[in-house]
Amino acid sequence: MAVNLLPPELKSLHAVPGLDLGVAMAGVRKPNRKDVLVMRLAEGAVVAGVFTKNRFCAAPVEICRKNLSGKAGIRALVVNTGNANAGTGKDGLGRAQQVCEALAAHLGCKAGQVLPFSTGVIMEPLPADRIIAGLPQALLQQSNWLAAAESIMTTDTVPKAYSRKIGLSGGEAVVTGIAKGSGMIRPDMATMLGFVATNAAVSRKTLNRFVKVAADASFNCVTVDGDTSTNDSFVLVASGQGPEAAAKKDLAVLEEAIVDVSRRLAQAIVRDGEGATKFVTVRIEAGRNVEECRRVGYAIAHSPLVKTAFFASDPNLGRILAAIGNAGIKGLDSSRIDLFIDEVLVARAGARSPDYRDAQGLAAMKKPEFTVRAVLNRGKAAATLWTCDLSFDYVKINAEYRT
Amino acid sequence: MAVNLLPPELKSLHAVPGLDLGVAMAGVRKPNRKDVLVMRLAEGAVVAGVFTKNRFCAAPVEICRKNLSGKAGIRALVVNTGNANAGTGKDGLGRAQQVCEALAAHLGCKAGQVLPFSTGVIMEPLPADRIIAGLPQALLQQSNWLAAAESIMTTDTVPKAYSRKIGLSGGEAVVTGIAKGSGMIRPDMATMLGFVATNAAVSRKTLNRFVKVAADASFNCVTVDGDTSTNDSFVLVASGQGPEAAAKKDLAVLEEAIVDVSRRLAQAIVRDGEGATKFVTVRIEAGRNVEECRRVGYAIAHSPLVKTAFFASDPNLGRILAAIGNAGIKGLDSSRIDLFIDEVLVARAGARSPDYRDAQGLAAMKKPEFTVRAVLNRGKAAATLWTCDLSFDYVKINAEYRT
Repeated sequence: MAVNLLPPELKSLHAVPGLDLGVAMAGVRKPNRKDVLVMRLAEGAVVAGVFTKNRFCAAPVEICRKNLSGKAGIRALVVNTGNANAGTGKDGLGRAQQVCEALAAHLGCKAGQVLPFSTGVIMEPLPADRIIAGLPQALLQQSNWLAAAESIMTTDTVPKAYSRKIGLSGGEAVVTGIAKGSGMIRPDMATMLGFVATNAAVSRKTLNRFVKVAADASFNCVTVDGDTSTNDSFVLVASGQGPEAAAKKDLAVLEEAIVDVSRRLAQAIVRDGEGATKFVTVRIEAGRNVEECRRVGYAIAHSPLVKTAFFASDPNLGRILAAIGNAGIKGLDSSRIDLFIDEVLVARAGARSPDYRDAQGLAAMKKPEFTVRAVLNRGKAAATLWTCDLSFDYVKINAEYRT
Repeated sequence: MAVNLLPPELKSLHAVPGLDLGVAMAGVRKPNRKDVLVMRLAEGAVVAGVFTKNRFCAAPVEICRKNLSGKAGIRALVVNTGNANAGTGKDGLGRAQQVCEALAAHLGCKAGQVLPFSTGVIMEPLPADRIIAGLPQALLQQSNWLAAAESIMTTDTVPKAYSRKIGLSGGEAVVTGIAKGSGMIRPDMATMLGFVATNAAVSRKTLNRFVKVAADASFNCVTVDGDTSTNDSFVLVASGQGPEAAAKKDLAVLEEAIVDVSRRLAQAIVRDGEGATKFVTVRIEAGRNVEECRRVGYAIAHSPLVKTAFFASDPNLGRILAAIGNAGIKGLDSSRIDLFIDEVLVARAGARSPDYRDAQGLAAMKKPEFTVRAVLNRGKAAATLWTCDLSFDYVKINAEYRT
């Protein structure tokens, strides 16, 4: 059960002019479920993306990188669930390419103008024929964002979508996004797909900047289990069918909205983390630099011992201190570190605070959401991450995934 | 239930002349359990140790480091379970020191000649008074190595001890060791205590070398959950009451035996990993150097997704490839990697081997012990690690540890 995460209301999800959605049941892995999504883009749309850093990147990721670096504008995105087309070698590249070619033929564009995305089991051949057979069905639909969010779910229990309207000098614009992912989520992307679209008109250069800023402030700040997938992708689309964002003020408004939508999607992934029962914000303050704050934060957020203590609402705070000590930060002086659970000071100067009582920590950790805050007292930098606990159900879900 | 690990037979554990063992029930945390171990060393014994790299090292570790660097010979080791005396600041140092002083007073030596070790819950004050009150009981006993192994157990389900006799030029010598640890185990030590003793006479310099060699070949090659504890310690004792090991050949025989005993103890820790149902050897071959082989090995051994797949006997081999890709090895070419489960070639050149059938992987992984072997095909180095799976019981044990 996801932590404080309800399915989005359809009426809250604004359509994005210049972007058409179509969903199909192609039977990629199982029958009778939406498993193919096609997003068609108006001519002139600009697209930017960031992708997994896993050295085993999947075939569709390789093709996305190539096609995004080309000069021809992207005209469509095609997403399938059920099969990740990863660990599939040259054959996998060929199959992803077949899907792009088939969609391009329908749309009268080139295969290089299509971006493919796949998520699901790895090391099995992509059933490209079934996806291709499903394309006409997807192209006939005029689907909404909620259906789109549903069509990209795998082990997700809740569809993830968020939308905002913003005021630019030239008029109102929308920013709407969907995402999927619930396990194997960590920085540098994960089996995580995120798509955020706006009808604002922005330059490709600006969009390339926005996609990095938004990823670093959202998907690269969340972790469920520390694994990084072969397929992670985060793509920004600006259809150009709405008001222009070129003036400094408009760019700031648009950037803030894109970051906000991306962050809510990223947090939704953690809230729906496999087996998650807690949503935990990890904040590291007074570090020398952001990088070391992030390292300390991830040392906490990835520790199985800390995560099982979160699950148990057990204020076994020593485990958190041990994780900090384990982060590999040179010269870190453990006797200067203060630790808080929400507003409760649990450790001061590296040792249990004299006033602290376990009941206080327990009360804070029993809540479905709380903040672990460590103050390193050695600098002025800070970083914030979001994570979840490690529960029985995480093991259950991942042990039974294929069976 | 530990994987292929039975309690050691008492008759297999050879006494070490020059080392006396005594166990007490001091009620450190719970009544009626052996929780204090005193090892008394004959005058002239030499001692060497390696300790946790966690920046939050526990009070006893600080004192061990200091006392081992002193000139006076070590005359005793004192170990308590139930409380780790970690995250306890100056007060914790004072309490550990009190225990050393009390034991030194009994033995007529200086506090600096005593090494203290603690394992158990962190961030709670060490009940030094109860440990001190238990010392006379321990000093009156003449305990055997099995009782010693039992006295240092925490979440361990099986006592861990191993012993060998070796032939040196000057006669027969023994090497006997005990260890504890079952969770939070990883390289650079973990809540892992290991003590290996011999009656052979070796120089302090040699023993200092042996302790590093043995740690790197044993305790630094195992991982349960990737966490590194505040208290990890591995100590070698040479009582000097047996034949001398100074000639090259004798040193080689002794080193081999110390490495062997240490490795069996380290593997026993993995076999008894919290909730473990599988004992998995991870071998990385044909890497550029040992360091990168170890990084790839740990990326596999620490991946919660891989570990849950081990638990499920699920040949979801893509998860292993994804973990390899995730190891952060620069220039790693995924299309050159071969992957084996025992003798089954599952992936060739980065993709599923054409001849591979899931039933083969399943058959291999259903066994309680198997080997995952990745061949990187980019060099001549290799490394071997040992790990276990991630089961329901891991979560259960760690979520309920304090309650």
